[in-house]
Order: sequence, then structure tokens, then C-alpha cells
Amino acid sequence: MPRAITAFSNPLVKSVRLLRDKRHRRDQRRFLAEGLRILTEAREAGRLPQAMFFAADSASHPLVAALIEATEAAGGDAIETTPDILSKLSGKDNPGSVIGVYAEFETALDAVDRTAAPLWLAAERLRDPGNLGTILRTADAVGAGGLFLIDDCVDPFSVEAVRASMGALFTVPIIRARWDDFLAWLRTGSGDLVALSLDASVDYRAPAYRAPTFLLTGNEAQGLPPDYAAACDVRVRIPMLGKADSLNAAIATAVMAYTVLDRQQPL
Amino acid sequence: MPRAITAFSNPLVKSVRLLRDKRHRRDQRRFLAEGLRILTEAREAGRLPQAMFFAADSASHPLVAALIEATEAAGGDAIETTPDILSKLSGKDNPGSVIGVYAEFETALDAVDRTAAPLWLAAERLRDPGNLGTILRTADAVGAGGLFLIDDCVDPFSVEAVRASMGALFTVPIIRARWDDFLAWLRTGSGDLVALSLDASVDYRAPAYRAPTFLLTGNEAQGLPPDYAAACDVRVRIPMLGKADSLNAAIATAVMAYTVLDRQQPL
Repeated sequence: MPRAITAFSNPLVKSVRLLRDKRHRRDQRRFLAEGLRILTEAREAGRLPQAMFFAADSASHPLVAALIEATEAAGGDAIETTPDILSKLSGKDNPGSVIGVYAEFETALDAVDRTAAPLWLAAERLRDPGNLGTILRTADAVGAGGLFLIDDCVDPFSVEAVRASMGALFTVPIIRARWDDFLAWLRTGSGDLVALSLDASVDYRAPAYRAPTFLLTGNEAQGLPPDYAAACDVRVRIPMLGKADSLNAAIATAVMAYTVLDRQQPL
Repeated sequence: MPRAITAFSNPLVKSVRLLRDKRHRRDQRRFLAEGLRILTEAREAGRLPQAMFFAADSASHPLVAALIEATEAAGGDAIETTPDILSKLSGKDNPGSVIGVYAEFETALDAVDRTAAPLWLAAERLRDPGNLGTILRTADAVGAGGLFLIDDCVDPFSVEAVRASMGALFTVPIIRARWDDFLAWLRTGSGDLVALSLDASVDYRAPAYRAPTFLLTGNEAQGLPPDYAAACDVRVRIPMLGKADSLNAAIATAVMAYTVLDRQQPL
């Protein structure tokens, strides 16, 4: 049965509140996800929270009830609480009706089966959590095998990244790796590494994009380091007709990803 | 010659600070833009600030010097100030080295020349300022004639939207219109209105996309109202292979826009 917590001073509330901070996420190896849609997406992907908080008046919603039941069946804690505490946990004035606390997870490089999907995404030193979440959401949409986070990327378990992913954090395997390790692993099997680069001379529509294709997007402000780009099999650019000469990193990744999908699965 | 302001209590500092708030932007009909890149983009697009604030140690930067000179030549105010005041004005701990105060501008529906570009973007009830700014940036990149903001969209002059646009706010014409007025105007000339819709049966790669094409994206959570979608000439969907069934609105717009560009200007 769910229990109720109504005091801000409750130790669980305090420790969960800390998960908004990266250092505490690292120490606890847990993270927060908010909102019925995202928690339901997680449940459908087989990820259940260690603890979930819900507003009393939401418990009768069928999806909330399903979450409570599944969480408790898996040995987790379902906690009825107040709108004020939900606000405090989420950091938003209008929190969703549910908040979940999940154990962190990730996929090891050695465990990746590159034949599992024709398209994989990779991002290098991505800084913006919204971009990371949006790229995860795009990765889900194009059926990518996973997202490689190369070198020092923003934390995929940050509240902003989880929110922007709209649940794709739970459905898209994430593999964190240093560049040298990633490249060494990549070269143990088949697959073309394709770099997005402003300096490239090849139009992004030209290559054949055989499976598996690994699409690599660089840092938002600086792009890829030249030696990283040089190590790729193909370097392509997206034409820009405007006055500025840049696209948002998540936008460029999506335009590329859907183009690869079109070449691999034409209409 | 630039003058210096170092007091938080300065009336100009106070009134500019208020521009972070929508109500005050509406009253003053002015808005804020931050950062050397964005202010330079604006200058190159012929938009100069009524007032600009800069940190003393940045005045020797050639682009800052060019901004100061152009602003003063146009009768604007160039104001040297402290890092603390720049922080206060920008609301960020690490503000850019320059902040500009600009008069709002927009393009009237009647002033739009649809033959000026083969592709136009439109967004309906867009809620997220980051999405709006990102769509402006994409509009610049694909050479769109402008962005129509239909019905009650988020304010394009909000600090977040201006920042996400990376300067495209100054290069892409913005036309705000009610749906009925937009549709009436559209039907006075040539052009296909193309709706992105999860319910559509036509794959986004199928249509011919003759010029001018008007691409319409709906509200992030709800999509387009059914009667709006029904009034469009073509309704298309972007295939999604994943477990979630959605793309970020700015992502979907960009995938569509680059596809139209490809059909109109093939490789």
C-alpha cells in the first residue's frame, strides 16, 4: 500500500530533492523523472522507479494507478504526497502529478551489438541538456540503436535532459565513452562514422549511408575537433542559405538522421 | 562618446531590467538581446539598438567597437557598465560582454511578398520560447521568407527566444496573425499550405512542394486543431519508428523544411 509523506523535513524528501544537483546524482547514482507521460514511457520500457511520489487526487487516474501497482510489485516505494512537496521536488510551480526516482543505468561499449540497428547517433562534448534530451527523442523516433556520448557531455540524467527527452531516456540505450575507446571499438567491426562539419565539402544528401551508420555531432559552439573529424569516414555539411551560418546541434542531428533513414528505407 | 553607468539605481538600468518581463516589453515595445554574436548579427541585418551596454574591458574588441560606433552613429546610446550590472540586466551569472535594447518590429500580413521566397514557415500556438528561437534559426538556414506566428504563440522577443534564435530574430521576418486572417491572406494568391500532423496518411517525402510552400507546425502538446489541419492543402506525417510517437516541434519543422528545400533545390 502507498504510504503518505506530508512533511518537507522527511529525510526521503530531502534526499530526493538533492537529486536536482549533479553531484548528488553521482553520489546516489539515482535521478529524477517527472510527469505521467515520461514515467509511463519508462514503465513500458521496463524501467520502474525505486520510489514514486504522486498527488493524492491523481491516484485514481488509470495510468497513475498502473504505475503505483507496478512500482510496488517491483519492490519500490509509492508515496502519496502534497502538491507543495511535488513542487519542491520538481523545482517547478506546476509539477506533474507524479515524480519518480530511478537508479541510473547505461550500456557499456563492449555490450553494444552494432548489428541491432542500421543507424546510431553520437554526440561529442554536448553541453546543453535540452539538446541532449531532444537528440534522445529524435534517436527514439528514427529507431537508432543508441546514443554514444563522447568525452565530457552534459549529464543525460539531469532534470532538464530527462524532461526534454520526453521519456526517450528510458528507451534509447546510452553509451558513455572517451573518444579513443569509442574509435577503437568502432574499428573492430563494420560501419561508417559520419561527421557533421561546417568545413566539409560533401553535401549531406550525397553519401549512400550503408548500415550501420554512426552519425557524429560535435560541440554546440566549437563543432568537432579537427582530428576527430579527420578520423571519420565521411564528413558532410548541411547547406545553409541564410545570414547566420549555423544550425542548432539537435536540429542538425535530426536533419541528418532522417536523411540516413530515408536512404536506408526509401519511400 | 559612450557614457558610464555604474549604479544599480540608475533609472535606465531599472527600466531595461524590466524588459525581462513580458508585460513591460509590451508597454515599452522594446526587448533585450545579449551577446556579441547576436548583436553583431543584428547590426549586419541593419538593426541597431536604442541603447547598448558593454563591459569596460570589452570596448577594445573590434566587434564591440564596431557596435558602439554604429549605435552612436544611428543616434543610440552606448553605455559602459560593470559586470554586475550586465549580470543584473541579463539575469545570468556569466552575461555576454554586450547587451542591446531594441525597438520591437514585425512585418504586417499585408506587407508580405510571397514570391520573395519558395518556402515559408508557420507555427500555431507555439508555447516554448526555445522552440520558437530554434525555428527562427532554422528558418534563416533554409532561407525561408519568414515565420508566421499564428494565434497565441509565445513572445518572440522574450529573452529565451532571442537567445535560442542566435540572431535569426533579426534576419527572419516575423508575421503575427490570427488564423482566419492568415488563411484569408493565403488564399489571395498561390501557394500550398502543408500541415505536419500525426494523423496524416501522406509520408512527408511524397509531395512535390511547389513554390511557395507554407509549412505549418502545431502546438507542442496538442498539434494542430482538426479544422486547421483540414483547411490545409496537404497533410503529411514524419514516420516514427520508436516507442514514443512524437518529435520535438522545432525538430519536426526542420526535418520538413530541409526536405522541402531538397525538393525545390535538388542536389
